[in-house]
Amino acid sequence: MTRPPTIALDAMGGDVGPDVVVPAALSALDAHSNLRLILVGRREELESRLAAAKATARENLQLRHASEVVAMDDAPALALRTKKDSSMRVAIDLVRSGEADACVSAGNTGALMATARFVLKTLPGIDRPAICTSIPSVHGHTHMLDLGANVDSKAEHLLQFAVMGSELAHAVDGIERPRVGLLNIGAEDIKGNEQVKDANGLLVASGLNYIGFVEGDGIFLSDVDVVVCDGFVGNVALKTSEGVAKLARHFMTLEFKRNLLTRLAALAAMPVLKAFGRRIDPRRYNGASLLGLQGIVIKSHGSADRLAFANAIEIAILEVEKAVPQRIHTRLAALHAERQAQ
Amino acid sequence: MTRPPTIALDAMGGDVGPDVVVPAALSALDAHSNLRLILVGRREELESRLAAAKATARENLQLRHASEVVAMDDAPALALRTKKDSSMRVAIDLVRSGEADACVSAGNTGALMATARFVLKTLPGIDRPAICTSIPSVHGHTHMLDLGANVDSKAEHLLQFAVMGSELAHAVDGIERPRVGLLNIGAEDIKGNEQVKDANGLLVASGLNYIGFVEGDGIFLSDVDVVVCDGFVGNVALKTSEGVAKLARHFMTLEFKRNLLTRLAALAAMPVLKAFGRRIDPRRYNGASLLGLQGIVIKSHGSADRLAFANAIEIAILEVEKAVPQRIHTRLAALHAERQAQ
Repeated sequence: MTRPPTIALDAMGGDVGPDVVVPAALSALDAHSNLRLILVGRREELESRLAAAKATARENLQLRHASEVVAMDDAPALALRTKKDSSMRVAIDLVRSGEADACVSAGNTGALMATARFVLKTLPGIDRPAICTSIPSVHGHTHMLDLGANVDSKAEHLLQFAVMGSELAHAVDGIERPRVGLLNIGAEDIKGNEQVKDANGLLVASGLNYIGFVEGDGIFLSDVDVVVCDGFVGNVALKTSEGVAKLARHFMTLEFKRNLLTRLAALAAMPVLKAFGRRIDPRRYNGASLLGLQGIVIKSHGSADRLAFANAIEIAILEVEKAVPQRIHTRLAALHAERQAQ
Repeated sequence: MTRPPTIALDAMGGDVGPDVVVPAALSALDAHSNLRLILVGRREELESRLAAAKATARENLQLRHASEVVAMDDAPALALRTKKDSSMRVAIDLVRSGEADACVSAGNTGALMATARFVLKTLPGIDRPAICTSIPSVHGHTHMLDLGANVDSKAEHLLQFAVMGSELAHAVDGIERPRVGLLNIGAEDIKGNEQVKDANGLLVASGLNYIGFVEGDGIFLSDVDVVVCDGFVGNVALKTSEGVAKLARHFMTLEFKRNLLTRLAALAAMPVLKAFGRRIDPRRYNGASLLGLQGIVIKSHGSADRLAFANAIEIAILEVEKAVPQRIHTRLAALHAERQAQ
């Protein structure tokens, strides 16, 4: 008899901590009868939030005390070295010991990556873990990595990102041979920086379903399942797209508030605008995977609300069920064997 | 008596060439009594377009024959070497000889940059010209560079981009000390790649009004006048923002076409949606400056229509009036002198 998927939640992480994590945990348990969650953080605070929600700790909702909290602006190395009883660290330790199958944190990204890497270690054949998230596109969604864990990536790292992204898409979307694109500034071979030109050669020889270069707009518009890039570039692209969305909302609001007539128009268009908003709601995409580790770690946005954090828990469940790290490990071993044989 | 601003137009460049450039030229002349344009391209084609518009060549609208056309997919080096009588080349030659004060082309970006650099040369103190465009923001617009002329930029190049962008904003927007930001992936000093960390040091010491790091969303949301970045990163950010805008339009259209009720809502909201559309209309921002050259060259989008190409002509006029290359030259000489004195 296998145990239910067990997920450790860093209940103190993010901008508001337990005020979001505890309600999100209760929602997730309502949605999944076969799920066990471990809330990690200051016991009294967690108990008071549970009491407020008329809930208590039980078989499928356990509490684990942790006395410290990693602040959103703590330096990653310092947090790792000095806060050994933080909710983030204890949650990751639970994955390491096998008590949990995955952990979810809305805490400081740098500290989460540094701690996860130190505690869980990378998979054999992975030099650097990467941050991967799915992004809405005309065709559904695109998995994009790296989003900021690595800067100054070498071609070999981009190849590793491609393997990880491809296995993730295969596992969670059920795509047999995910199409992998390399982010570049033009479709011609001559364009691109050194990193991208070298990575292109490695990807062509990788055995992945590599479709070549994708430009920035292709993330949203192309027939591609995985887009690979250096973390500096990926982070800029992700933040840029958030900026455009905010700018559009700002201008749209200005125009609808212009006068009585436009306010009436807003009223008429409200159901459509809401449906549109749901389609691109970032909360529905919340939850980035830290890939390449010997364990599953999901990063929620720091400002996630209940719905968004619950979505990050869903992603963790899916990755547990699909055994994503094991799949990446197997694929890397096969790639390594092929290269040896050549 | 000074002559009117004289601008050479590569009339064959872009996806449709003279079908856009000739009507755009006529619009620009209607708007500016003190302007002279030189249409460069195949004489018969230009004459037939003029005739169709019931116009003829005249004192302020001259024709210059050029027998060849640089194709949108021509390799830049090959175009430069083999098409010496292309409309693009002849238009740039007119700037070199002083017959024109600026040129505008919707042709192949790589060929335009290579040819402009070869014919006009860079300003003293500039290693690499950069592509700069203005982007709509909450506060008006932001000048961003480089957008793809340079990849693998060194810190020193980013400093040069900052000087060029700052002088451009000063000249065309009349801002006394434009705020310059460096595109990065986090506000903390510890983040960023090597290139950005080194450039940060140079910018702090530059005497520019340097405000530090700006993240991707800050291009649209921050109080900043100029955002500096490597061309690879800038091109990805620009194309990403185009992609998000197209995705949003796609989803919005889907939702408004869902049923009769939503179609009625679209009708009610149409004036507002149109006003919103005008605010972010990329045609109103069409026209990127190739900065750092001994001359003014404006790149129009290849798919520009009449309105968009006419906007690129407006930018050329403004840069001629404000003598942008001379200003950059003066600022660079001052910076160089300061550095020598230290």
